[in-house]
Amino acid sequence: MKFQLIDAILEQSPERIVAIKQVSAAEEYLADHFPSFPILPGVFMLEAMVQAARALLPTSPRLVLGEVKALKYGQMVRPGETLEVEVTLQKRLEDGSYACKGSGTVRRWAGSIDASETAVSGRFVMRPIRF
Amino acid sequence: MKFQLIDAILEQSPERIVAIKQVSAAEEYLADHFPSFPILPGVFMLEAMVQAARALLPTSPRLVLGEVKALKYGQMVRPGETLEVEVTLQKRLEDGSYACKGSGTVRRWAGSIDASETAVSGRFVMRPIRF
Amino acid sequence: MKFQLIDAILEQSPERIVAIKQVSAAEEYLADHFPSFPILPGVFMLEAMVQAARALLPTSPRLVLGEVKALKYGQMVRPGETLEVEVTLQKRLEDGSYACKGSGTVRRWAGSIDASETAVSGRFVMRPIRF
Amino acid sequence: MKFQLIDAILEQSPERIVAIKQVSAAEEYLADHFPSFPILPGVFMLEAMVQAARALLPTSPRLVLGEVKALKYGQMVRPGETLEVEVTLQKRLEDGSYACKGSGTVRRWAGSIDASETAVSGRFVMRPIRF
Amino acid sequence: MKFQLIDAILEQSPERIVAIKQVSAAEEYLADHFPSFPILPGVFMLEAMVQAARALLPTSPRLVLGEVKALKYGQMVRPGETLEVEVTLQKRLEDGSYACKGSGTVRRWAGSIDASETAVSGRFVMRPIRF
Amino acid sequence: MKFQLIDAILEQSPERIVAIKQVSAAEEYLADHFPSFPILPGVFMLEAMVQAARALLPTSPRLVLGEVKALKYGQMVRPGETLEVEVTLQKRLEDGSYACKGSGTVRRWAGSIDASETAVSGRFVMRPIRF
Repeated sequence: MKFQLIDAILEQSPERIVAIKQVSAAEEYLADHFPSFPILPGVFMLEAMVQAARALLPTSPRLVLGEVKALKYGQMVRPGETLEVEVTLQKRLEDGSYACKGSGTVRRWAGSIDASETAVSGRFVMRPIRF
Repeated sequence: MKFQLIDAILEQSPERIVAIKQVSAAEEYLADHFPSFPILPGVFMLEAMVQAARALLPTSPRLVLGEVKALKYGQMVRPGETLEVEVTLQKRLEDGSYACKGSGTVRRWAGSIDASETAVSGRFVMRPIRF
Repeated sequence: MKFQLIDAILEQSPERIVAIKQVSAAEEYLADHFPSFPILPGVFMLEAMVQAARALLPTSPRLVLGEVKALKYGQMVRPGETLEVEVTLQKRLEDGSYACKGSGTVRRWAGSIDASETAVSGRFVMRPIRF
Repeated sequence: MKFQLIDAILEQSPERIVAIKQVSAAEEYLADHFPSFPILPGVFMLEAMVQAARALLPTSPRLVLGEVKALKYGQMVRPGETLEVEVTLQKRLEDGSYACKGSGTVRRWAGSIDASETAVSGRFVMRPIRF
Repeated sequence: MKFQLIDAILEQSPERIVAIKQVSAAEEYLADHFPSFPILPGVFMLEAMVQAARALLPTSPRLVLGEVKALKYGQMVRPGETLEVEVTLQKRLEDGSYACKGSGTVRRWAGSIDASETAVSGRFVMRPIRF
Repeated sequence: MKFQLIDAILEQSPERIVAIKQVSAAEEYLADHFPSFPILPGVFMLEAMVQAARALLPTSPRLVLGEVKALKYGQMVRPGETLEVEVTLQKRLEDGSYACKGSGTVRRWAGSIDASETAVSGRFVMRPIRF
């Protein structure tokens, strides 16, 4: 696989970004997670939010995941579905980190989408890489 | 990559199937096709129709692509977009082959979709594998 | 996999190219096409012709598959065998496209090769990429 | 890549497991995370704890990540280093979920390991998969 | 990649086997060995002989490479070329191992092949796996 | 896989290098070598020594494996274990090649390591690439 977990940015302002991750059966990790029951791993939902945050925030110094706070998982995302993530910048911290709020929603080409379709939501911190 | 080019079936009747192929930046062939300009290869649009046809038609004997007739490509499909293919069975041929008609449309989560968004359309034949 | 479907060019003149695609069991897509019966997918035979055409034709603007006309598949190509493709430029069209004729033959290190060994043949059009 | 993020279990009791994840330059996602600066993604540290938890807890029904609470990242883990994760079962919840505590430490073949070498620590919940 | 380094067996008798390994640009390790200069790694020529020996010898107990004696490398093998390996059983040893002699020759679809085209030759021992 | 078989250099002097190869279940070739019994292929132990030698020796002209002399394999290396290779330059030969001595030892995070834990040892020659 290529470790790129967002495919397109749908909306972007200085403090908010909306991006999507298409889930495709051609992605090889799905064969292991799980055999005969492919779903997007929860940690890849988090990574989609991390990569969306990286697209929203300054690129130098490089930012990595520093903290995860109260992240909750809901609906699963299967091949043929799309995870739409929204990340909002909450606050720039004194140590150069950024507190963010993020959520992910399942989108499907057929069928309705309602409130129960939240796949992930929570807060996390992006921090400068430490050498 | 896993050579699975349809992700979900949206509609199916005895003579018609509608399926989708999500295009995701995590699929590794996109790095080569093309460097710094990733698009779904035209032959993968065709393969998506072939695999949709295989899901529509009898599974034994195994069917492979036997003929392509007048296939035209239009709009390109990029990461974050979805190819929706529709395959219709036209006729069962005397040698056990199946004449099919297929088309593919680009679907996007943002923006409108109009007639110019056809990605591929044409006719093809699925034939029993020959040993 | 690396999406490179020709391995070497055997002959080349301004209007004709002969190239080969080695089929190797180490190529991962063969595990899916098909489990316990690995054969080169028909769309990869077409892609080998497309890539040979791209090596024959001007590189700017970039050319993609625009049309497939009357393509017929014959013999299958298995691991340990080689697909030799020959592409001939037929005509440069007014819109900057190129009409090509292509064919593919199975070559094996053991055994004879005769007329029944055509794997693919047909006509196709390479067109400039549209943004 | 194969989506298997623990390589060996070093210790296991009914409520605690210690497992390791070797980080090797042969793992392809490192080429993207990051180009010319390969480090184990933070979400893979979390996944190593999730997979260790799955090895510790009952296998039926299948458990997935349900919640992450107060996870903090410290030291980075590079190729040639090892992440040792320790997961402790805290409590079985009424809905069939399991509250866990986890931490990860960097181990290296050369050099000393001290308190500053914590790579990750926090709490998370494994919950039964919902269909 | 799939770790299968022989593609087809051309000849086989109780004490001798001839097999081929097609080298294809689609095999991903070639991108690293070497960037802009792809050649089959010498250790994969050896592995092709090991896998040919495994096809020649009894399958139980499983045999692994136990010893390499005086192996010499000659001509390189590039994408579009084929490595033909010949392995001959020399002797069954008392500990259940098998002494083998092996050689590999480069075959190309165009151009002549002469004595200087030996890619590898030497002796090696296949031994039962030890638990 | 990425064809990079050393992960870190632990020691280096003008005539000697010590490097490690972490063996991780995430490396995909292990699924084939062998199904349900993953071990580092013997040829990858050799390649780890070759790559360590390449890090020790001059980089221009590029050096490839030219000869293997009396290489013996001992202990197997499994996921979660580490192969530590030591390569010593023995002699610079007149044709620009380098005679080397190499050995590999299994290292584990738990349990003792004794003399029986040698995984590989022998002599080999690195030679300039021939065009």
